[in-house]
Amino acid sequence: MTAADTHELGEVETQTVQLFDAQHPLVLASGDELGEVVVAYETYGRLNEGGDNGIYICHALTGDAHAAGWHPGDKHPGWWDTIIGPGKPIDTDKWFVVCSNLLGGCQGTTGPSSTNPATGQPWGLDFPLLAIGDFVEVHRALGAHLGVNRWHAVVGGSMGGMQALEWSLRHPDELCNAVVIASSSRLTAQNIAFSAVARQAIMRDEHFDGGQFATRGHNPDVGLSIARMMAHITYTSQEGFDEKFGRRAQIEGAEHGFGVDFAVESYLDHQGEAFLSRFDALSYLYLTRVMDYFDPFADPHALDVVAAHPVNYLVVSFDSDWRFSTEHSRRIVRELEHGGLPVTFRDIRSPWGHDSFLLDVPVYHDTVRAFLECESATHPHAHSGWRAR
Amino acid sequence: MTAADTHELGEVETQTVQLFDAQHPLVLASGDELGEVVVAYETYGRLNEGGDNGIYICHALTGDAHAAGWHPGDKHPGWWDTIIGPGKPIDTDKWFVVCSNLLGGCQGTTGPSSTNPATGQPWGLDFPLLAIGDFVEVHRALGAHLGVNRWHAVVGGSMGGMQALEWSLRHPDELCNAVVIASSSRLTAQNIAFSAVARQAIMRDEHFDGGQFATRGHNPDVGLSIARMMAHITYTSQEGFDEKFGRRAQIEGAEHGFGVDFAVESYLDHQGEAFLSRFDALSYLYLTRVMDYFDPFADPHALDVVAAHPVNYLVVSFDSDWRFSTEHSRRIVRELEHGGLPVTFRDIRSPWGHDSFLLDVPVYHDTVRAFLECESATHPHAHSGWRAR
Repeated sequence: MTAADTHELGEVETQTVQLFDAQHPLVLASGDELGEVVVAYETYGRLNEGGDNGIYICHALTGDAHAAGWHPGDKHPGWWDTIIGPGKPIDTDKWFVVCSNLLGGCQGTTGPSSTNPATGQPWGLDFPLLAIGDFVEVHRALGAHLGVNRWHAVVGGSMGGMQALEWSLRHPDELCNAVVIASSSRLTAQNIAFSAVARQAIMRDEHFDGGQFATRGHNPDVGLSIARMMAHITYTSQEGFDEKFGRRAQIEGAEHGFGVDFAVESYLDHQGEAFLSRFDALSYLYLTRVMDYFDPFADPHALDVVAAHPVNYLVVSFDSDWRFSTEHSRRIVRELEHGGLPVTFRDIRSPWGHDSFLLDVPVYHDTVRAFLECESATHPHAHSGWRAR
Repeated sequence: MTAADTHELGEVETQTVQLFDAQHPLVLASGDELGEVVVAYETYGRLNEGGDNGIYICHALTGDAHAAGWHPGDKHPGWWDTIIGPGKPIDTDKWFVVCSNLLGGCQGTTGPSSTNPATGQPWGLDFPLLAIGDFVEVHRALGAHLGVNRWHAVVGGSMGGMQALEWSLRHPDELCNAVVIASSSRLTAQNIAFSAVARQAIMRDEHFDGGQFATRGHNPDVGLSIARMMAHITYTSQEGFDEKFGRRAQIEGAEHGFGVDFAVESYLDHQGEAFLSRFDALSYLYLTRVMDYFDPFADPHALDVVAAHPVNYLVVSFDSDWRFSTEHSRRIVRELEHGGLPVTFRDIRSPWGHDSFLLDVPVYHDTVRAFLECESATHPHAHSGWRAR
């Protein structure tokens, strides 16, 4: 593969489809039902006649359906354009790539700021609590709508990896391969603590109004931007921050004060501010809470179904990731291997912390490409060649 | 030393003294002057006739003058009672121990919520910016007031270690030993980032009112408690959190929601809340900013004075501390050794992260005791016995 073989996807479009309605509601893991679920999604590449060349992209906490290519007027392409496109590791010349905005999200898919059909008002905190399995149910319904018979792979980073893992454990006959990147099967107390403080910042903002802020014409912007700034620190490594900013002053020789004195302060400020225009405070609460409760291997029968229909796994971690450290990935690998499943594990050197999964780290991209294109990856029971690499 | 040799300090009292006034103002590193500086302090043990058995305790970000012993009605003793007292590592039977609340603080010493003599109103953000060297100037003035001729040691953890280091570099003839624990000579971008987000949470709180909140009868409680909760995560290690809380539910079997579902959430909530009754939002801004700017070795002549009057150093780090990791201490050691100074360095195994410096970690306490009591520690040029341990 040379650079000349890689070109751009060009313009892409987000589409929407209603997948559940009052007659066919989505039954959630909690037992609650959602009588109206609209999903925003994008597709790249073409589905083959067998309907088995699909790759489902599951996004992380603040992602959306726009994973790759360009929308008219975009300053940046989709959030995972580094890895998805013609000739890229997730090659849209070969695979039919699908990405949807998550249930509970705020970029086109039904979520807590959508209208509650029963009241005509935004759901707010009356929106039901969700689980990773609920995301997977919506993904499966979208796959059926698009005519996909079997997924070549389900791929995700961070919370996206949780969805790939969950899907493989619950419905392993529906996918050949699962790619679980910088993810976790079980948050630590520290992970939960960071999200808890972020939620407190949002819920205790003077403009949160018990979650009814949208009807009152304001938003808990301070809380949401504080949450985002704090999270950003955890997405970057100490090393990455030092390399990018160090102790550099924002304006050399400027008077000291409590403003943006250091370059790293300017960066965080910008991250907090930019987030407000694209994310919803309620979605932040709902989606972080889903992660807190994810713990599939707590069920002693978690591997029973997949053991009967093995899925090939690629588990990837980054050595500077301290939000979901390599130890999180190792635990996933140990659990899967305990169930006798074929697992490839790579801990990749990268200075950029958790964010590495979104970046163009060559060894990482080569690993994903090779795994998806490996002959054996389409034949779960003949994977030894790959594993010996 | 056996447990029977250790007993309690008993009741102690915070005293106050005005050390600077309009005729003799405190000239700050910035060139600004403070025409009224009152200092709250405590002393334990007795000053000897030579006035050279004093140990100065420098506190960290949120400490105060009440380092050891009990105030009437106290539920807990002073914040460093584990290490200070009769028969304890900082032995009040031997040493005259002094601890004062920092300039810029809020527990009896002049700070931004004190009255500005020029206006009769609280200083607020008109209070001048401070530097670690300003803290040291106030400590020196208190020492002179108490009749101390030469300090046996200056001791501090975290920001307290910065003061011990600064004092030793600027006025090495005034102390024999400096004990720098879990500290830093230079914050990283990540360190600055955490404090920057904390300050944003405070300054963007609806009740901050440009720093004039005190005159308006309210406080930026939400911002200050968010700042404290976030900081607490960084004071504890991943390992410490897991050991203490893991994924334990606060109430087993309780319904999931956005409240205090996990035990770690309850802990953080409590930490945030308890902080409000004892700390001031403006002091939080001023004291964190002082740390951001501390960088003594940026001055190529930093070691010139101390090289002529060597101080013995003990530098201690804790292996699970990720707020000021072992690497911060190693940098201090490298700089001091580069100047030819006698340095003992211990990286101590402890699961409790940055907070370890406040806890009873036996190897740590034994190390501090031995260093302070070592014959050689009173003779800077005969330290080889100690170093060979």
